[in-house]
Amino acid sequence: MAREPEVQLTDAQRIDWLRLIRSENVGPRTFRTLMNHYGGARAALAALPDLARRGGAQRSPRICSREEAEREVAGARELGVAYIALGEPDYPARLREIDDAPPLFAVRGERDALERPMLAIVGARNASAAGQKFAERLARDLGSAGFAIVSGLARGIDASAHRASLATGTVAVLAGGHAHIYPPEHVDLLHEILVGGAAVSEMPVGWEPRSRDFPRRNRLISGLALGVIVIEAALRSGSLITARLAAEQGREVFAAPGSPLDPRAEGSNGLLKQGATLVTEANDVIAVVEPILGRPLPMADAAEDAPAPPVGEPDDAERSRILALLGPSAVAIDDLIRLSGASPATVRTTLLELDVAGRLDRRQGLVALV
Amino acid sequence: MAREPEVQLTDAQRIDWLRLIRSENVGPRTFRTLMNHYGGARAALAALPDLARRGGAQRSPRICSREEAEREVAGARELGVAYIALGEPDYPARLREIDDAPPLFAVRGERDALERPMLAIVGARNASAAGQKFAERLARDLGSAGFAIVSGLARGIDASAHRASLATGTVAVLAGGHAHIYPPEHVDLLHEILVGGAAVSEMPVGWEPRSRDFPRRNRLISGLALGVIVIEAALRSGSLITARLAAEQGREVFAAPGSPLDPRAEGSNGLLKQGATLVTEANDVIAVVEPILGRPLPMADAAEDAPAPPVGEPDDAERSRILALLGPSAVAIDDLIRLSGASPATVRTTLLELDVAGRLDRRQGLVALV
Repeated sequence: MAREPEVQLTDAQRIDWLRLIRSENVGPRTFRTLMNHYGGARAALAALPDLARRGGAQRSPRICSREEAEREVAGARELGVAYIALGEPDYPARLREIDDAPPLFAVRGERDALERPMLAIVGARNASAAGQKFAERLARDLGSAGFAIVSGLARGIDASAHRASLATGTVAVLAGGHAHIYPPEHVDLLHEILVGGAAVSEMPVGWEPRSRDFPRRNRLISGLALGVIVIEAALRSGSLITARLAAEQGREVFAAPGSPLDPRAEGSNGLLKQGATLVTEANDVIAVVEPILGRPLPMADAAEDAPAPPVGEPDDAERSRILALLGPSAVAIDDLIRLSGASPATVRTTLLELDVAGRLDRRQGLVALV
Repeated sequence: MAREPEVQLTDAQRIDWLRLIRSENVGPRTFRTLMNHYGGARAALAALPDLARRGGAQRSPRICSREEAEREVAGARELGVAYIALGEPDYPARLREIDDAPPLFAVRGERDALERPMLAIVGARNASAAGQKFAERLARDLGSAGFAIVSGLARGIDASAHRASLATGTVAVLAGGHAHIYPPEHVDLLHEILVGGAAVSEMPVGWEPRSRDFPRRNRLISGLALGVIVIEAALRSGSLITARLAAEQGREVFAAPGSPLDPRAEGSNGLLKQGATLVTEANDVIAVVEPILGRPLPMADAAEDAPAPPVGEPDDAERSRILALLGPSAVAIDDLIRLSGASPATVRTTLLELDVAGRLDRRQGLVALV
């Protein structure tokens, strides 16, 4: 599907974007705020040290150098990996809508798969034979119906879902970089996926995944998809995290029922009690997502996505007043504005300084010092 | 719980009631209409032959004789079986509210169990070990919470539910009479049930159950209970009939989830898709029924329960006009009134005649000739 590019980064811009998102204390949300404040990645990179100093950083944050970024891009190219930036025409439409969409992600394989409507199938690594068989049936039937199947390349349900949709197109979302496939025994599966589908990652190509990278990765699984189907999930499992993120992102949540005596079904049955749609066949999913195909989703958090108001430069007194209101307990940004008497722009800038200094924890409109 | 009797039949009245309900072409609904029209069972019995003749019966309907009725009562007494009549204080409050409540039913065992709030647990005869274990757990926990457990004494889920609630009180609803326990291998289980619980039947004591008696019996299982819990039900199974009847009676419907690949769970998963409450533990049930405990249920069909208006005696011309509108296709009674130009009372009497002549099929406000 050839679309006229609306915004296509130059190679130099792409390097600047990569440097900014790879720099210390810059996540997708801070990236967006910095871009809005400084108008571009290069200006934001130049401002980082001073911002961090004003935010109280003991040392300047580590900034990704041009050489490092160029080395990453060259290494990626050798693996056949390309970068897609937020706002570029190839960036998947659904993913663009999430609050913490990655500014850049690295894709390998057949990127056309990313243009298709996607459904995520996730579940237990230690899935039962019946669970894996059901995942296969569902992935095959949804694939035949025109959906690309997204999953996390894990053992169990994920692998079953990928395998059953190799012919129709499947997308593996990696927790590490493209050069570190996890689990290692799925390297062959990954290569089969790449023939007609794709693998995506927001991490540096050589990044070895740590356990905390998996929950972060899960927001991309749900973010790419119209909905997430959970098959056999225990309580406190990663699949439930994906389901929660999906709900927060305004995506549909589906779950397969299981025996009340099977611990592997406790999480999925729990989702059903909370209102997830019960799935025993592909049509249960299609009936729900068909009406929303092609319709833009509402923004998960419109406030965070609105263009930033003019930068307010806090003076020392304002900054102290705002800092005094912050502590280890989370506080709402609205309350900070009200209690400090500072302008919203001034509060936002102060928080950005703390962000870049690595001193701020943001969660759903609440902030706390770390 | 001793309550002041409001209406207690004399022995003679009880014999008349039993004769009327045991007479040919008289079911619970016709019984009620006859009682309303004739003011009592004895007058109705006297009117039956003439009614049937006017309804076009080829021969007079078989009327249960006083001797037969007395013989049934004597046989029942030998088994320790007593009769409870609609309107008597011991008649279970929930059952009284259903549209086709039995005018009389026969109870054996501890009738106090019928005073407790009841929950029905039903399911597959060929249940899995997990299904039976779950039925036991649920019956035990709901029994401990103060509910009597109603079921159908069948193999599989029913037997598990009864066994696990022997100590707290369980009620078996029979499809045949008290002298014909089905399946025969559950005679011992029945005797254990009778120690602290009860068995009930609306059929003559010596009635051998035929397959069509089971669906009819199922309305009593749901009718006694606040709600019906379905565990492992295949498509087109008796448990689904019970669930449908429960919904029609305004009772809560619950279902246990099961694997999408297990044919024994297709019916119960289907109920969940239709909005049944998902159950993995007793609290899922208690949370739903606790608020309705002690609150009267709305009548399933207020029109059929309203006191009958004065009897309208149709003349031959009216009767012919109404008959001409009837055929093998079901038609609404309201349409009959409108199209015939006869009064509602006249139409109702004509239908009663056809009923007693065994020529009418009534289903949810619709009538057809048989």
